Amino acid sequence: MRKKEPIDNPSVGVVSTEYFTFAGPAEPFELLCGRTIGPVTIAYETYGALNAEKSNAILIAHALSGNAHAAGYHSHEDRYPGWWDEYIGPGKAFDTDRYFVICSNVIGGCDGSTGPSSIDPATGKPYGLSFPMVTIRDMVNAQWHLVRHLGIDSLLAVAGGSMGGMQALKWSILYPGMVRSVIAIATSASVSAQAIAFNEVGRQAIFKDPAWNKGDYYGMQAPDSGLSLARMIGHITYMSETLMHEKFGRRLQESAVSDFDFNREFLVETYLHHQGFKFVNRFDANSYIYITKAIDFFDLAKDHGGMISAFEKVSSNFLVVSFTSDWLYPSTQVKEIVKALRVNGKNVVYTDIETDKGHDAFLVKNRALEKNIANFLKSHADNNT
Amino acid sequence: MRKKEPIDNPSVGVVSTEYFTFAGPAEPFELLCGRTIGPVTIAYETYGALNAEKSNAILIAHALSGNAHAAGYHSHEDRYPGWWDEYIGPGKAFDTDRYFVICSNVIGGCDGSTGPSSIDPATGKPYGLSFPMVTIRDMVNAQWHLVRHLGIDSLLAVAGGSMGGMQALKWSILYPGMVRSVIAIATSASVSAQAIAFNEVGRQAIFKDPAWNKGDYYGMQAPDSGLSLARMIGHITYMSETLMHEKFGRRLQESAVSDFDFNREFLVETYLHHQGFKFVNRFDANSYIYITKAIDFFDLAKDHGGMISAFEKVSSNFLVVSFTSDWLYPSTQVKEIVKALRVNGKNVVYTDIETDKGHDAFLVKNRALEKNIANFLKSHADNNT
Repeated sequence: MRKKEPIDNPSVGVVSTEYFTFAGPAEPFELLCGRTIGPVTIAYETYGALNAEKSNAILIAHALSGNAHAAGYHSHEDRYPGWWDEYIGPGKAFDTDRYFVICSNVIGGCDGSTGPSSIDPATGKPYGLSFPMVTIRDMVNAQWHLVRHLGIDSLLAVAGGSMGGMQALKWSILYPGMVRSVIAIATSASVSAQAIAFNEVGRQAIFKDPAWNKGDYYGMQAPDSGLSLARMIGHITYMSETLMHEKFGRRLQESAVSDFDFNREFLVETYLHHQGFKFVNRFDANSYIYITKAIDFFDLAKDHGGMISAFEKVSSNFLVVSFTSDWLYPSTQVKEIVKALRVNGKNVVYTDIETDKGHDAFLVKNRALEKNIANFLKSHADNNT
Repeated sequence: MRKKEPIDNPSVGVVSTEYFTFAGPAEPFELLCGRTIGPVTIAYETYGALNAEKSNAILIAHALSGNAHAAGYHSHEDRYPGWWDEYIGPGKAFDTDRYFVICSNVIGGCDGSTGPSSIDPATGKPYGLSFPMVTIRDMVNAQWHLVRHLGIDSLLAVAGGSMGGMQALKWSILYPGMVRSVIAIATSASVSAQAIAFNEVGRQAIFKDPAWNKGDYYGMQAPDSGLSLARMIGHITYMSETLMHEKFGRRLQESAVSDFDFNREFLVETYLHHQGFKFVNRFDANSYIYITKAIDFFDLAKDHGGMISAFEKVSSNFLVVSFTSDWLYPSTQVKEIVKALRVNGKNVVYTDIETDKGHDAFLVKNRALEKNIANFLKSHADNNT
């Protein structure tokens, strides 16, 4: 493969993934499950410049299938920019003319940060299922090491959607003195039984693929079949029924008449297969099962003695956003977070954005979301720096 | 296995499955796809007695995973009665003291009626994927042969939930002179893109199981792993989020503390696995893919030149029921049926029953549903016989 030429993005300049490694035998990184790992590598990218006062840093936390590459293009060969390019750049919601934006791949992930596909120094082989179970707390603690490494004592904001919102909330609880504001979008203090159920059938799709081989498949045929099915299931839950109807309805693939066979005939089937197919080229099945478990385990009320206690000591300002058509992380659940914050007298801006885009609304262009983020950040950047 | 003793049910008497066979080389049964099959066997059960005028017959049509055994127990060994026992029996909604109730297994099914697991007379081997694609119309046409065989010219009602409701609606359109009333519950004139998507991921779970072997697995290891996953996915969609929350919440299986592993820890996971496990003992994977395709293909508007035209010539009275928490066949879709009927000036009773039981609400005891069915039947039995 020809080496890709890095490009100077007209928006966010040259974008490249950096790697920071910490912890080791002498100073291992301790996880909530009681086990330790080390060394731990964190893949991250930054956009914009840190100001002299180091007061303009924003940490972006990604969702289940995200990575450190949040904005711009790495090379001319890239078909798509970073996953949150719509929101990060000069004049955008996370305005890189004003803010220093950091995004890192979560531990347990598969895009440069230490995860089940990484080499276990103890064996010289990929961890596979011997990788310890990671939690949202562990992801946040690893990010803390990165932030400190970058010389930052205080974050203007931690922001994210879905699992990214969980990390943002956890940051405010674990490091109250370091997080001036939190932007938590389409997230939950603990996912519903239904969301756990969907995650579990996704994991089962992987477990049932013979190629999964109890997580030991590196260097061999990967469980692409199971992972693509997991992704197909997931995608149904990320879209609203209305959006699916608008996008596909009951339209057939090519012919207007049914062929009376089991080929993919409806457009919605073809779309899901395409999503599943694309995903296996960029994601590791073991990371999928570890990260979905981290999502399922996340439970602020349980971990902090109730929802009210959870937010008792936070000192951040909060922007909390839900989407009216998000049925995976519904507004009713998001409002529980807002309620608990308000009982504690915290400063919260809450908005339930009207959209038919479902849970994934935060990943696509949404003027209301842009405005909310931009204004919230401006007000707190001006007040606190 | 010891032969089971048939029992005299205190409610519906001795219940046994009967078999009716029709069609053959001389007189093949023609399907919508253009292919023919024969002989065709229909497994059916009846409860109550046909009156002298033959005017009290009700045909019950089952949903995706149902069968002919709708009421009573076959033997003392049975742990559960027929699938609609709650609604069929003396003094129940389908009052067997008054009505002659018939329930048959759909063609394409696996509980006695001709389907992909049946022996193809041309080869002496199970059909497998050489079984022709069946549609709701074909199911209804096969039932017509059974009804005629039973000497019945006119049905007091055709009733069913979900796919059963589709059959009931189709009966009224195909045989307007034979169906005095229709009871269509939690059904649709054509399922949504989202419902097709869920059916497709279920089918993919089966296709991806190596044991499926392109449908050729009879006498060998069946694709239980894929079929159980399909059932798990399905079960999520049959329940409301509220019901799941009430039944399971985020409660863990046994220990109160997470074990930090991939075992089934949340109660909802265990429940789904149990449903998947139970299902493979009673259902055929090929029937699952054929019947879900029949559901996806069902489209009254498309097949009859629009929703209004579809019901133009029907002469039945209709009871149409939806459930407020049914998100698979939502009330909004059910109302489309009611609207089209009313535009045509048909006699429709419509009720949106308040329940948190989701799509499967029609399978469990529901006082409002009982009352609605009982009263609707009484009024039309009295008026028309």
